[in-house]
Amino acid sequence: MQALGQRARQASRLMASAGRGKKDAALMAIATKLESSSAALRLANEKDLAAAKDNGLEAALVDRLVLSESGIAAMATGCRQVAALPDPIGEVGDMSYRPSGIQVGKMRVPLGVIGIIYESRPNVTIDAAILCLKSGNATILRGGSEAIYSNMAIAQCIAEGLAEVGLPTDAVQVVETTDRAAVGQLISMPDYVDVIIPRGGKGLIERITRDASVPVIKHLDGICHVYIDQDADPKKAFDIALNSKTHRYGVCNAMETLLVHQDIAKQILPRLCQAYVDVGVELRGCIRTQAIVPMLAAIDEDWDTEYLAAILAIKVVVDFDQAVQHIADHSSDHTESIVTESYTASRKFIQQVDSSSVIVNASTRFADGFEYGLGAEIGISTDKLHARGPVGLEGLTSQKYIVYGDGHIRK
Amino acid sequence: MQALGQRARQASRLMASAGRGKKDAALMAIATKLESSSAALRLANEKDLAAAKDNGLEAALVDRLVLSESGIAAMATGCRQVAALPDPIGEVGDMSYRPSGIQVGKMRVPLGVIGIIYESRPNVTIDAAILCLKSGNATILRGGSEAIYSNMAIAQCIAEGLAEVGLPTDAVQVVETTDRAAVGQLISMPDYVDVIIPRGGKGLIERITRDASVPVIKHLDGICHVYIDQDADPKKAFDIALNSKTHRYGVCNAMETLLVHQDIAKQILPRLCQAYVDVGVELRGCIRTQAIVPMLAAIDEDWDTEYLAAILAIKVVVDFDQAVQHIADHSSDHTESIVTESYTASRKFIQQVDSSSVIVNASTRFADGFEYGLGAEIGISTDKLHARGPVGLEGLTSQKYIVYGDGHIRK
Repeated sequence: MQALGQRARQASRLMASAGRGKKDAALMAIATKLESSSAALRLANEKDLAAAKDNGLEAALVDRLVLSESGIAAMATGCRQVAALPDPIGEVGDMSYRPSGIQVGKMRVPLGVIGIIYESRPNVTIDAAILCLKSGNATILRGGSEAIYSNMAIAQCIAEGLAEVGLPTDAVQVVETTDRAAVGQLISMPDYVDVIIPRGGKGLIERITRDASVPVIKHLDGICHVYIDQDADPKKAFDIALNSKTHRYGVCNAMETLLVHQDIAKQILPRLCQAYVDVGVELRGCIRTQAIVPMLAAIDEDWDTEYLAAILAIKVVVDFDQAVQHIADHSSDHTESIVTESYTASRKFIQQVDSSSVIVNASTRFADGFEYGLGAEIGISTDKLHARGPVGLEGLTSQKYIVYGDGHIRK
Repeated sequence: MQALGQRARQASRLMASAGRGKKDAALMAIATKLESSSAALRLANEKDLAAAKDNGLEAALVDRLVLSESGIAAMATGCRQVAALPDPIGEVGDMSYRPSGIQVGKMRVPLGVIGIIYESRPNVTIDAAILCLKSGNATILRGGSEAIYSNMAIAQCIAEGLAEVGLPTDAVQVVETTDRAAVGQLISMPDYVDVIIPRGGKGLIERITRDASVPVIKHLDGICHVYIDQDADPKKAFDIALNSKTHRYGVCNAMETLLVHQDIAKQILPRLCQAYVDVGVELRGCIRTQAIVPMLAAIDEDWDTEYLAAILAIKVVVDFDQAVQHIADHSSDHTESIVTESYTASRKFIQQVDSSSVIVNASTRFADGFEYGLGAEIGISTDKLHARGPVGLEGLTSQKYIVYGDGHIRK
């Protein structure tokens, strides 16, 4: 792993000054390689799938392992889309003259070497690699052992694409061992790795955060809330509450708890709850909710649970402040949405709720890098430092101050 | 410490939504309190100074402990200057409509609770407290045991200022124990502390970084370089090289190593070295340097040493690339400056040198928050994540995405 780290560090220096033309050409070349290697990729994937079945892997995990023809086409499209994004590196902002006469600005630069640790889905290999490539970083990718053959086949396409345009193949390295000790080494080489981005379950991310001596950009859980205010438009409330829960269940920006103001609860809940039940959502309510619509009782644990499933906790609150307090106490600070026609309530919610995305009159499902216009995302950060919320190319960069003088010295 | 942390967390919620008017009024009130408490502050300081002498503290450290009348006046002025700075909190940027119809932007928010761990200088107490206050954060300050009476007297002024305008006095808490275990607890309460900023010697900062489970914004060493290119203007080269070393010795943005292109070395070095010797700078040169001006030989260790003293290492390089390579190998990535009239060399230096400040034709001494126009600084970060280079109010903030919709749902 040390040797891998050293090679990544060297490659990162070359990548930092690689021009946009070369980086984009590499992305286009990788897209072509993925398409022309479709058969080889699927063959490698078959080996992983066979091993997974032999090892009795859960069906859901096996599903996530599959690399279909359309999946490969989507990866190639992803490469071309990232090539079309603007290059953040070298962007200069805030350039201004100071009273001393020096001219000061900030220039975007790559972070250096980014370690990505992820679980079974092989498409993460390409997603992460191309975002790091475009942002001028070197990457070390450590995927799950279940996907090792698929990941190595994808790595081969990336290496060929890089080589074709004369960029260092060490800019994207896939760890070829499935030895668990490799992860421990990867997260404790601050000389060679600038940041770790774990992608996977909460257990993985907590373990890495605890053990890493390299900074980590975390993506923890999403316990997201929709709050239907007393001044909500009932139609908007119905649509947003339904969409936030049922558009997709297993995603971090799905609503897990619905809060409803007591003055509007009787008007909203009966029809809304029927709609949830109709699509198979299990409801768990507080006492006030149960008094309006019969359902299972929510227990304390429900307010702190990320279901990632067709289950919803519902609480009727006495006022706006109780809603905000509930969010402060139970939210994972990922995404919260208010439905209201009140100017003052919307301003207060935006100001008082401290989550990475705070939304007025729209579904929590919009909290995502593509919807926000980042072009792509490597994850949604629940950290407060560096990058918060959806992380696109800019989150994979840092900045340096640049100063122009004409012989200026400090007086 | 747990109780302290809980109070800070609660205060941070109130500070986050405290308006600019209240925060600025608190800063003005603190300034007045400092001035009117001048006698009490100096009395407390006398106690620290007496104890320091009894304990045989080094004279240099005792010097840094002294709180003079002019020092107190400077602290009050600092409060008024920070009050006059714009409030970063609530600033919204990049607001734009997306194809889906939602409107997305980013709003600046406080980090939450900031722990500051610092050594003897009591003025850090006020500097750190007021920057955190202005940026809407709660602070826990842990100063050196040598300054405990001074720090508590300053804390009293801050508390009175906060109370006067109705802000929570828990927004700025000074740890009253000199027990070393308190530091260990402060850096391992991620539930109550969002970030630690250590200020002090390299040993302190490395220890905290190693042991902290809370993110740390580091300010490590400054091994800064000036490179005099073959196309340098000799007058600018002389002025900048002299100023970068001799303007102040004990600061992190002072030059520690001078690199000179071989084609200009004979022209530059004799007069420049004489100027250094005239002001008492000890010179240590590579073999090529010694061949031009007799001086002590530099050993390997010199290239990696932050002298913080009137000592300078000098190396003659064969070309631009060797200068950049020397910087990559030995710099602490703090600040580097090139002196050149070459357009291409200046562009290459700005692009290839990966330091928090990269300067063309100006002294390294400009790398500082005041000179860059940040208004004030809490330190100079040598980290790449979150805040890099001089850290002002913005470095003490995070951002959240805010989204406005009109009933929008994901299709």
